[in-house]
Amino acid sequence: MDAYTPTQKDKFTFGLWTTGNAGRDPFGEPVRDRISPIKSVENLAKLGAWGVNLHDNDLVPINATPAERDQIIKDFKKALTDNGMRVVMGTTNLFGDPSFKDGAFTSNNPTVRAWALKKVMDSMDMCVDLGAEIYVFWGGREGSECDAAKDAVDVNKRFRECLNFLCGYSKDQGYNLKFALEAKPNEPRGDIYLPTTGAMLAMISTLDDPSMVGVNPEVAHENMAGLNFYHAVAQAVDAGKLFHIDLNAQKFGRYDQDLRFGSEDVKGAFYLVKLLEDSGYAGPRHFDAHAYRTEDEAGVWDFAAGCMRTYLILKDKVKRFNEDKEIQAIIAAANPKNPEMTNLMGKFSKANADTIKATDFDRVALGKIGLQYEKLDQLTLEIIMGVR
Amino acid sequence: MDAYTPTQKDKFTFGLWTTGNAGRDPFGEPVRDRISPIKSVENLAKLGAWGVNLHDNDLVPINATPAERDQIIKDFKKALTDNGMRVVMGTTNLFGDPSFKDGAFTSNNPTVRAWALKKVMDSMDMCVDLGAEIYVFWGGREGSECDAAKDAVDVNKRFRECLNFLCGYSKDQGYNLKFALEAKPNEPRGDIYLPTTGAMLAMISTLDDPSMVGVNPEVAHENMAGLNFYHAVAQAVDAGKLFHIDLNAQKFGRYDQDLRFGSEDVKGAFYLVKLLEDSGYAGPRHFDAHAYRTEDEAGVWDFAAGCMRTYLILKDKVKRFNEDKEIQAIIAAANPKNPEMTNLMGKFSKANADTIKATDFDRVALGKIGLQYEKLDQLTLEIIMGVR
Amino acid sequence: MDAYTPTQKDKFTFGLWTTGNAGRDPFGEPVRDRISPIKSVENLAKLGAWGVNLHDNDLVPINATPAERDQIIKDFKKALTDNGMRVVMGTTNLFGDPSFKDGAFTSNNPTVRAWALKKVMDSMDMCVDLGAEIYVFWGGREGSECDAAKDAVDVNKRFRECLNFLCGYSKDQGYNLKFALEAKPNEPRGDIYLPTTGAMLAMISTLDDPSMVGVNPEVAHENMAGLNFYHAVAQAVDAGKLFHIDLNAQKFGRYDQDLRFGSEDVKGAFYLVKLLEDSGYAGPRHFDAHAYRTEDEAGVWDFAAGCMRTYLILKDKVKRFNEDKEIQAIIAAANPKNPEMTNLMGKFSKANADTIKATDFDRVALGKIGLQYEKLDQLTLEIIMGVR
Amino acid sequence: MDAYTPTQKDKFTFGLWTTGNAGRDPFGEPVRDRISPIKSVENLAKLGAWGVNLHDNDLVPINATPAERDQIIKDFKKALTDNGMRVVMGTTNLFGDPSFKDGAFTSNNPTVRAWALKKVMDSMDMCVDLGAEIYVFWGGREGSECDAAKDAVDVNKRFRECLNFLCGYSKDQGYNLKFALEAKPNEPRGDIYLPTTGAMLAMISTLDDPSMVGVNPEVAHENMAGLNFYHAVAQAVDAGKLFHIDLNAQKFGRYDQDLRFGSEDVKGAFYLVKLLEDSGYAGPRHFDAHAYRTEDEAGVWDFAAGCMRTYLILKDKVKRFNEDKEIQAIIAAANPKNPEMTNLMGKFSKANADTIKATDFDRVALGKIGLQYEKLDQLTLEIIMGVR
Repeated sequence: MDAYTPTQKDKFTFGLWTTGNAGRDPFGEPVRDRISPIKSVENLAKLGAWGVNLHDNDLVPINATPAERDQIIKDFKKALTDNGMRVVMGTTNLFGDPSFKDGAFTSNNPTVRAWALKKVMDSMDMCVDLGAEIYVFWGGREGSECDAAKDAVDVNKRFRECLNFLCGYSKDQGYNLKFALEAKPNEPRGDIYLPTTGAMLAMISTLDDPSMVGVNPEVAHENMAGLNFYHAVAQAVDAGKLFHIDLNAQKFGRYDQDLRFGSEDVKGAFYLVKLLEDSGYAGPRHFDAHAYRTEDEAGVWDFAAGCMRTYLILKDKVKRFNEDKEIQAIIAAANPKNPEMTNLMGKFSKANADTIKATDFDRVALGKIGLQYEKLDQLTLEIIMGVR
Repeated sequence: MDAYTPTQKDKFTFGLWTTGNAGRDPFGEPVRDRISPIKSVENLAKLGAWGVNLHDNDLVPINATPAERDQIIKDFKKALTDNGMRVVMGTTNLFGDPSFKDGAFTSNNPTVRAWALKKVMDSMDMCVDLGAEIYVFWGGREGSECDAAKDAVDVNKRFRECLNFLCGYSKDQGYNLKFALEAKPNEPRGDIYLPTTGAMLAMISTLDDPSMVGVNPEVAHENMAGLNFYHAVAQAVDAGKLFHIDLNAQKFGRYDQDLRFGSEDVKGAFYLVKLLEDSGYAGPRHFDAHAYRTEDEAGVWDFAAGCMRTYLILKDKVKRFNEDKEIQAIIAAANPKNPEMTNLMGKFSKANADTIKATDFDRVALGKIGLQYEKLDQLTLEIIMGVR
Repeated sequence: MDAYTPTQKDKFTFGLWTTGNAGRDPFGEPVRDRISPIKSVENLAKLGAWGVNLHDNDLVPINATPAERDQIIKDFKKALTDNGMRVVMGTTNLFGDPSFKDGAFTSNNPTVRAWALKKVMDSMDMCVDLGAEIYVFWGGREGSECDAAKDAVDVNKRFRECLNFLCGYSKDQGYNLKFALEAKPNEPRGDIYLPTTGAMLAMISTLDDPSMVGVNPEVAHENMAGLNFYHAVAQAVDAGKLFHIDLNAQKFGRYDQDLRFGSEDVKGAFYLVKLLEDSGYAGPRHFDAHAYRTEDEAGVWDFAAGCMRTYLILKDKVKRFNEDKEIQAIIAAANPKNPEMTNLMGKFSKANADTIKATDFDRVALGKIGLQYEKLDQLTLEIIMGVR
Repeated sequence: MDAYTPTQKDKFTFGLWTTGNAGRDPFGEPVRDRISPIKSVENLAKLGAWGVNLHDNDLVPINATPAERDQIIKDFKKALTDNGMRVVMGTTNLFGDPSFKDGAFTSNNPTVRAWALKKVMDSMDMCVDLGAEIYVFWGGREGSECDAAKDAVDVNKRFRECLNFLCGYSKDQGYNLKFALEAKPNEPRGDIYLPTTGAMLAMISTLDDPSMVGVNPEVAHENMAGLNFYHAVAQAVDAGKLFHIDLNAQKFGRYDQDLRFGSEDVKGAFYLVKLLEDSGYAGPRHFDAHAYRTEDEAGVWDFAAGCMRTYLILKDKVKRFNEDKEIQAIIAAANPKNPEMTNLMGKFSKANADTIKATDFDRVALGKIGLQYEKLDQLTLEIIMGVR
């Protein structure tokens, strides 16, 4: 027990599929037994987590009978209660079954799209019953390898239609769900539609009721395309659309690694934690990652503990950064106040435009100002490395 | 003269900076003299282009006197008239001058932001005077290397404020301009804000008047992040926001190459031309690229001619593809009709939801359907390779 | 039957794992039954292939009894004979079993390394018995996620030791095998050691007997790192080390796609075929790829036929390119002869150095020469697109 | 002054081009005056550096007269002496002048190749006179955009011929130089030949005298291709070929950033420092980077100081890591001893092979061993973050 030991008030959550990951990959067989949902709940509770998240089939196999399903849910609810845990977010597996091999909401086949809707509605019913307040959509198969086959304009219409339908369903059922859309650029499809958090935010603006739909950005997914995750989340925050977050780590430009949070790009992780803490994000800090394939079960719990611990270490560093006088002085100097100009730009008027156009800006002087960002970045790094 | 010889009705345009590129790069000095705007107009007209585009400083040096400016514009207008050419799109250089080294619209310094607004308004005046109907915004310096320095949430507010101001200016002046926002993930900044066409579409939805603002997607910029450009443009088409397009070529995951259109990823270029032609896009086909540094002036015209010729070759292939019975049969088979299901999903109602939930989908049968996409992709490639 | 119909003299081969791929991936279950080795042999023969390649466990399950093993091999040999097919290359699966989860030759655990050697020797015995003359080493697990765990200098020593041992074994057994090392930058490991063809060539130069060891470059593997595959193979050709080749396709900077040969980067595929044909490479043209997950069994054969057909289409284009007078004239102009200078540089002598140092080179004139590469690239593309 | 203040015994060096960088990039003009070589020497000495490195034209302009050249060198030598500094490494600018636009050693034009040789010999004379003991070759233009133009096999022969010639020259002159080859995958060329440290090591093995030639790996160059730099350097160490090193930072898969050492991928920088320190590398710790374009001259010195300071911080962390009992225990457990197996594998003999083949390995048990790498990586990260 030290300053970085998690407690429930930190709101850390894990997917059942994260601790349940058995270490199978495209080139190798599982290396450990799948940890059961109940065991995940028990052990995550002991480690200080606040809740768990799930796809329908993480808990209930796709071919379970209704009776099996009811028993599984009953046992799982008991485990939640016994361990002071909760289900915070639910989602649907629309990617594992061969029926979804060419997409779910964007499939060329209307029957597949309808089957996807049914699967989501059923899963939504179950997840709400389990207490979920956030419902995530990650369309793992909504993509293509052969762009001759699908009309890439139509896929937007299909995706929108399904989202609109499900918004309707959720409201009709009286569910108090917020939807969160999760983007990914590729894998398992050659390319996935709506590949970035930005693309998802744009899609949301075209929905019948954008208010109940936001995004679930994931570190690894944005980083696969080499994009700055902090910037992507900041755009979501600006739009009031950060409804959930997937924390993990990834090297740029390669397969989906789902590494332990903070284990790559520590500086990027620092800015992310800073944004979540400083912006007042009140949702769960969800870890969507899994242990290396070199690990046995003990390694799974090392992995889970490490995710939470690193978050708290970085949160403490954010506090130091915010209180560091030298750092804050450089930031202040780089952000000069100019109320007159700020007012002129705040709202267009012909008068404001005329004033700006008539101003004689000294571009050469503006170009000569040194901004001290090398020093600022170095001091930030020294905070991160614990030598400041 | 053959079937692939461009004419004005093909609406091909080039930026003055494309043919004017002197072959300077981060590691080497210019290899050829800069081709003057007037010479570009003359030669592009001879090659079959429809018009030219420009940044303010492509035509008028940043330190020109008003008298010099007027003379330059007068001579340039004459060259346009003499050669039957036009200015279709205008934009502002907000990236070359040291004053913009930490951004223009997103600079931390309000004076820099106001100076940027002034420069855009002045440029807009000039470009409208020259006939431009589209105004592009590429914020080359709107980014960061040190994320401690700028608040990445605030940059969205600043960017929006500037866009709103300039929309106001354009309307107040009675300019009939459409604005087109151009995204790029990085270079010359470590990361650029609003890095993808999707992010720009999302930003547009938050503006005071989204109707006059669309996007200007660029092949190379989306490809730098390894993203499927055809998909990005399709999302813009779906949103009614494809206001302009930047055609060139690029290898994924590297520096901004601005290669001759079609010279990389021919299959991707084919789908792009197909989308532009089939979707009824009526705007200019703009080439935003430049000749290799190995070229002298003759190579610049080879480059320009090649861009247009490849577009027309691909346009012809699109026609063949659309008329190919075997290809169309595979596409039709992959897109089965099911009016009943389609209707059920079209609009949410409790009844529709109940019907879908009560349907017994045969997921195993759906999963077994072979979609013939390997054959379809092969036939498409054979169209592209001219053996079909 | 047309000019692009493959025959045995084209020397096309496929791995049993390519047609046998059942469409499982990290996010989804198999979509089709695994095609048996015998059926692969039969159908590939009908399609015009020359032979097949295999890992030990493609043919014989890792837990087969000796009797099962013998029966499988007997049946397989009969299928080869009946269909006029052969086994050209063999290799070992050192990546699928959990025992290799942290590497085989580079494992920290000497017992794992010895077990890997045993598995290779057994597989080598079987593959030689089946007729293989080339033995490939792809170390799928020879990598790391946590670099604290393995000494990255030591892994080179371990890898070398295992290769030296196996060279010894092959010679001692009187096997006439050539070894071919295959590099890959990452996946399934976070990073894989000796990640490029270049790194493998360097490793070979440190072996006890470099003469029997060459490389097996793979399109997708080099392209994952965004590297120019044609250049990599050319270095191997220069070194006399191109012992085998893995043909497929891949988008840069993403997960291992193993797409149908030629289906991405057609221009790169053209240069590759040109190099193989023009350099006198006499080995098999091996396809290491698999059908999309959207396909049923028919799609698998479409995939296999497409690989071979595209190779032959490109081979025909190489001939056209080599015979195109305008293209060859540009190349000749770009490669001026200067026997005097060429001789001076051919071998160091003080006299030659003095002559070169005393020469007054006109660097400005050299810099002004236009090389016509834009035109050359365009003409090459027009050959590829079949309009020339 | 604290524990991380550099002194000359740390052997830190900078290129004159690093502090001399004026902040020009492909989209913008210089933002600060170029710092002169003499001022660089003075200020770097004050900051604790050990020496400087240079290209010929960093010190002597390409068009200087002999008299100008002599005066520049005289003044520069005085500055070195006055400040207790030295020139450690020299190299040639074979990329900036238009004459090298299609390569220097690999140019199709023999006259260009000879001119490159002359420029290197002249530069070598000057650098040796200044005291350089290491001579670096970075062939910035040795690449292509249009692969039809250059024979990619021949470029290897040309490169080798030039290197052999220059080895001959160095020995003939009695220079005690070690050559160090530096790879880069692309930029400023579309693709650069011999793109990785591995490819350079392979090239070296084909030279007439490999003994005097090693490599100069650069963090940013290997990272541009998303490759693990620590692994690349480890292969060079294993081969006895680490003759020099270029320290900086870079995000994967993008343009050449040349960022302050350690400012990206801190974990990777930690392993690199660990390798340099633990392997006994005795050469200079050379920084090949430059200040952001947001900086004035003060920012340049912040940048330089930051590079050295971060190296020393990480060096201290390496010491802590090496002394951390829990970490070392995990590493020891992951590296079990098995002298019997180790001996069997050490050298091939029929008897050893027979013993290994006859061993009954328990692959299932080997697969079940948990390796504790999640914990190890977490503890390493905690060392790096200064909380351990």
